[in-house]
Amino acid sequence: MNFEMILAADARLSGKKRITPLLNSPFIDELVGRPTYLKAECLQHSGSFKFRGAFSAISALGKKERETGILAYSSGNHAQGIAMAASMHNIPSTVIMPKDAPKIKIENTRKLGAEVILYDRYNESRELIGEKLQRKFGTVLVKPYDDSNVIAGQGTAGLEIATQAKEIGIEEADLLVCCGGGGLTSGIALACAENAQNFKVRPVEPAGYDDVVRSLKSGKRETNDNTTSSLCDAIVTPSPGILTFPILKEFCHSGLVVKESEVLKAMRIAFERLKIVIEPGGAVALAAALYHSELLDSKTIIVVASGGNVDPKTFSRALSFQ
Amino acid sequence: MNFEMILAADARLSGKKRITPLLNSPFIDELVGRPTYLKAECLQHSGSFKFRGAFSAISALGKKERETGILAYSSGNHAQGIAMAASMHNIPSTVIMPKDAPKIKIENTRKLGAEVILYDRYNESRELIGEKLQRKFGTVLVKPYDDSNVIAGQGTAGLEIATQAKEIGIEEADLLVCCGGGGLTSGIALACAENAQNFKVRPVEPAGYDDVVRSLKSGKRETNDNTTSSLCDAIVTPSPGILTFPILKEFCHSGLVVKESEVLKAMRIAFERLKIVIEPGGAVALAAALYHSELLDSKTIIVVASGGNVDPKTFSRALSFQ
Repeated sequence: MNFEMILAADARLSGKKRITPLLNSPFIDELVGRPTYLKAECLQHSGSFKFRGAFSAISALGKKERETGILAYSSGNHAQGIAMAASMHNIPSTVIMPKDAPKIKIENTRKLGAEVILYDRYNESRELIGEKLQRKFGTVLVKPYDDSNVIAGQGTAGLEIATQAKEIGIEEADLLVCCGGGGLTSGIALACAENAQNFKVRPVEPAGYDDVVRSLKSGKRETNDNTTSSLCDAIVTPSPGILTFPILKEFCHSGLVVKESEVLKAMRIAFERLKIVIEPGGAVALAAALYHSELLDSKTIIVVASGGNVDPKTFSRALSFQ
Repeated sequence: MNFEMILAADARLSGKKRITPLLNSPFIDELVGRPTYLKAECLQHSGSFKFRGAFSAISALGKKERETGILAYSSGNHAQGIAMAASMHNIPSTVIMPKDAPKIKIENTRKLGAEVILYDRYNESRELIGEKLQRKFGTVLVKPYDDSNVIAGQGTAGLEIATQAKEIGIEEADLLVCCGGGGLTSGIALACAENAQNFKVRPVEPAGYDDVVRSLKSGKRETNDNTTSSLCDAIVTPSPGILTFPILKEFCHSGLVVKESEVLKAMRIAFERLKIVIEPGGAVALAAALYHSELLDSKTIIVVASGGNVDPKTFSRALSFQ
């Protein structure tokens, strides 16, 4: 896994991915206490950054691998990214999703062309189900984060941030990234290590699911005790990835942890001030900038809003949350 | 008023305006029955396209005019555009707003640095209040649409649409524009007459406030009987502008009219499929594409989402609307 793989993924994604805007608002600058920019990956195809990694991995497959179809397991955003990217390649896809995933994510994954298999995330292992299917049909498994081509695809968001920041004269920044298994964070950290060396990349996680933040502190892969369902469903993972953790360890600065109430307030602020829809898991980085800016060093803050696939009910709850 | 004024406005706005993305979704393509793109002007600075016209007009002022400050009257979006553009020029601004305008618009206009004067839109004339203030303080009035530099500024959205459409290979399209007094529509129509000659620009209005659509049919400036408050507050105007109407008449194709229920459904679809926040008045063009596509001729549809300044309550209403 290296920077050149990100450049190669960027070439494959050229004209396919959306170059998402870097948004800002004087109201948010005031709340954070310094210039703050938001990379709106909720505006990416399929509603989250996951499209980048999915398309990157699928476009890297050989002819024979494409024939057997794609298999993926996902709480939702990777599923939609895979379904859309596979459709764009005319390849069939099967996605294993937890049956308590947001309805809109399950429905969209099906509509985007994937076959969806639901499983019970508290009593079944998606990895085992996936391996069984793989053995049976010989399909190619595209993992949500522990896959170098997926990490390379997510890293293209980092290339864009580096370019966009340079254009508006940002020389140093704390760059906060919503973090689950670490695919997006490690890809962005690798990209910035080369193209934006004065950026401090920091993972942000919801309280109770701060495996990456704790792992960066202890130096080894920590696990979450918590296995209950979370508001931030998109970024709930048991521990940092085997491939992603060494990259996070080498290139990331210490992470931040936010509360659910802070996430809901951040969603409302993004609605009011930036006119974008962010899902809870995609709002943790903005929440960290808004409510924990005392932990940040740089004169400028950049946050990634990683996705916008949220049920109307949850979004309305954020809008009326006090 | 000519195309060169739009190019000049574009030069003044360079690096100041946001080049808003042209978004799409396979789900919306399916609903409309053909490829459909949305110009997300809700992501423009101040939450609507109005920033373009306001900045264009203020940046065109001479040194002496700048000293006296800016005056504007507006139901909200022009107000915020003026307040923000004036602040960026370090010029004081006063804005006359109806006291029943959405609270968020009044509040934001104040926070963006303008002094706000509230009036009763059913019993007072904002034009008369404006003229009195102008006579008293000598401030420069920037009208919301009947001002050639404002029209030129709005036209820069048309330049962007023409360029973005060319980049993705769109050669002909029906281009639907949310229409109040006609500033945005006439600016875009003028820009397309030069840079996208196979685009049919069509104004879209809410039922009961279809003065422009009727005026295009009759060939003369028609007036709305209705003066009650509308869900689509941003685009409720009594009649087409004196400056805008001749341009609309020369360059626009027949317009479309949508119902409030269609507007609310379009807002929800933009939330679900594009992850953007559109206000009611900004959703009429998308509503026309979704629910009246039988009236459109071209293989591709482009709609402008003109603004996103909507109260949380109204937005939640759209999300739960059946």
